[in-house]
Amino acid sequence: MSDQMQRIVLASRPDGAPTPENFRLETVEMPTPGDGEILVEVHYMSLDPYMRGRMDDAKSYAQPVPIGGLMEGGSVGKVIASNDPSFAVGDFAFGSFGWATHGVAHAKQCQKVDADAVPITASLGVLGMPGLTGWYGLNEIGQPKEGETLVVAAATGPVGSVVGQLAKAKGLRTVGIAGGSEKCEIATREFGFDVCLDHRAFDDAKSLRAALKEAAPNGIDIYYENVGGKVLDAVLPLMNPHGRIPLCGMIAWYNAGGLGANAEGAGLTAPRLWRTILVNFLTVRGFIISNHWNKLPQFLGEVAPMVADGRVKVKEDITEGLENAPQAFIEMLTGGNTGKAIVKVK
Amino acid sequence: MSDQMQRIVLASRPDGAPTPENFRLETVEMPTPGDGEILVEVHYMSLDPYMRGRMDDAKSYAQPVPIGGLMEGGSVGKVIASNDPSFAVGDFAFGSFGWATHGVAHAKQCQKVDADAVPITASLGVLGMPGLTGWYGLNEIGQPKEGETLVVAAATGPVGSVVGQLAKAKGLRTVGIAGGSEKCEIATREFGFDVCLDHRAFDDAKSLRAALKEAAPNGIDIYYENVGGKVLDAVLPLMNPHGRIPLCGMIAWYNAGGLGANAEGAGLTAPRLWRTILVNFLTVRGFIISNHWNKLPQFLGEVAPMVADGRVKVKEDITEGLENAPQAFIEMLTGGNTGKAIVKVK
Repeated sequence: MSDQMQRIVLASRPDGAPTPENFRLETVEMPTPGDGEILVEVHYMSLDPYMRGRMDDAKSYAQPVPIGGLMEGGSVGKVIASNDPSFAVGDFAFGSFGWATHGVAHAKQCQKVDADAVPITASLGVLGMPGLTGWYGLNEIGQPKEGETLVVAAATGPVGSVVGQLAKAKGLRTVGIAGGSEKCEIATREFGFDVCLDHRAFDDAKSLRAALKEAAPNGIDIYYENVGGKVLDAVLPLMNPHGRIPLCGMIAWYNAGGLGANAEGAGLTAPRLWRTILVNFLTVRGFIISNHWNKLPQFLGEVAPMVADGRVKVKEDITEGLENAPQAFIEMLTGGNTGKAIVKVK
Repeated sequence: MSDQMQRIVLASRPDGAPTPENFRLETVEMPTPGDGEILVEVHYMSLDPYMRGRMDDAKSYAQPVPIGGLMEGGSVGKVIASNDPSFAVGDFAFGSFGWATHGVAHAKQCQKVDADAVPITASLGVLGMPGLTGWYGLNEIGQPKEGETLVVAAATGPVGSVVGQLAKAKGLRTVGIAGGSEKCEIATREFGFDVCLDHRAFDDAKSLRAALKEAAPNGIDIYYENVGGKVLDAVLPLMNPHGRIPLCGMIAWYNAGGLGANAEGAGLTAPRLWRTILVNFLTVRGFIISNHWNKLPQFLGEVAPMVADGRVKVKEDITEGLENAPQAFIEMLTGGNTGKAIVKVK
């Protein structure tokens, strides 16, 4: 066993979209697990939009990554040393090991992954944080009812594709939004969306709205919000009375820096947003899934069988090599991936 | 009985703040009640901020008042003719009779008012629509818990004063916002607010926020939203995680016309508003009380005894004469009243 490992740290804070210079690959000493801890050799690492938020020094639900600090992230890998009886060497574990080839964590904060039941990458996507995010927001906040209409963007992404498939299974009309005709094709063919609109084909919120109006002739009851920007602007006036907006992300605005007048969709003013919520009796609720991990067993009980028998389909976009994680992350933020973004570390 | 009555119609749509020219006093024929209808001689008429919305020709939860049409509104008065067994001549009735000395309505759409139990004006304020609005938003959406902190603007108004008093009775810290030192004095002395801030004493959202931070040292759990604008801008960054925002009005923005860049508080951008909801896991829900009249018995059962024994105090601002309603309404929109705005029609 080597006594060194590699990791990627935050070299500097991005000014708008992240660039490769914001990251630095380092070789450091292999850590030693303490009491109750395990040492894991990471096999697959997850890339998720929330990581962009951690790169800024702004007040948020989580501490920012400090300059020089390890980039945060969830990974799955093999236990190579254990000081806790709940994990044996050779077990697979999911945990928050960051952007790194190896990591140490408290056994209690890790979850055992059954590598025989499902591909271990599922624990990063459809049966992990993104899947739970989609399931929780759709059901707990969205309160879907048969015959209603749901809209979700990033429809081929790990959250959007789960939201769309679960909503479809409940008898909703599902309208996806994605970037590019190829993704739209995947959304309807593989993920069963009734319609998918290519947001790149529309110059502004107004033209996108006209297309949405045709795609959702009975209006929109649930807008699962993960993008903000132009899509939100287009969707808002089409919301039905008593509509619900689970809000778990706003990727179009993550790179907006001060979120000022130059941000995409800034034509959408706060008074207009507020007024729409008021006059349509909308419910908007922000959430982060780390507050709701207690729902994991219920989620897995419902969705794991749907994955196993193919009712819920999975799509992954795997990049080889930790050193390529920054570039894959940068591309993901601009929609370069199709399916769950994962880095194969070993 | 005279065969004529007076009423006020919408002469023209306001461009920004309403002016006297937007209204016209007319003398018309007295209507005759049809089958199942009653004819009421109005004694007191309510003035409420929502009426401003009806004057615009914009999509909303309610139809706009047409040009030349009767201004909408709730009133209480004496039944002078009845074609329905549920009302006798001489009974008092609350109903939607508009800005008028007399009105006809279906008996089923009116409520009998017990003039011996409470002053009949209470049915327009604390025990009527504004009181129910405050009670419903506070309890159903706000979910108040002992020890939490609540902020409400228009703190001496009929909604704000009920919200503050009911929250205080549940053990919350209550911070009011009102226009002018006299109102602030009333808010703390009569309505029991722990603190009341005069928003006119602060030039911008930032300075108001600094004062709010002192007034709410543990942050804000419930922001009962009825104003928008500068107050919302000031409050937002102080919201605690999992905070709740019942949204029933935005009076600061009602006169904003297109709600564009010149609206007060337009420095508050949509991305910032959205981001705050996201990172603090806030729940925002718009509502209009006409969807929740079924809660009236529960509300009256809880609040009427509190009014009767003085736990909930009432303040009314009564203008004499239907012809003075437009001016009283215009002043109410700019905070000229203290307490529930009512017009004594007879």
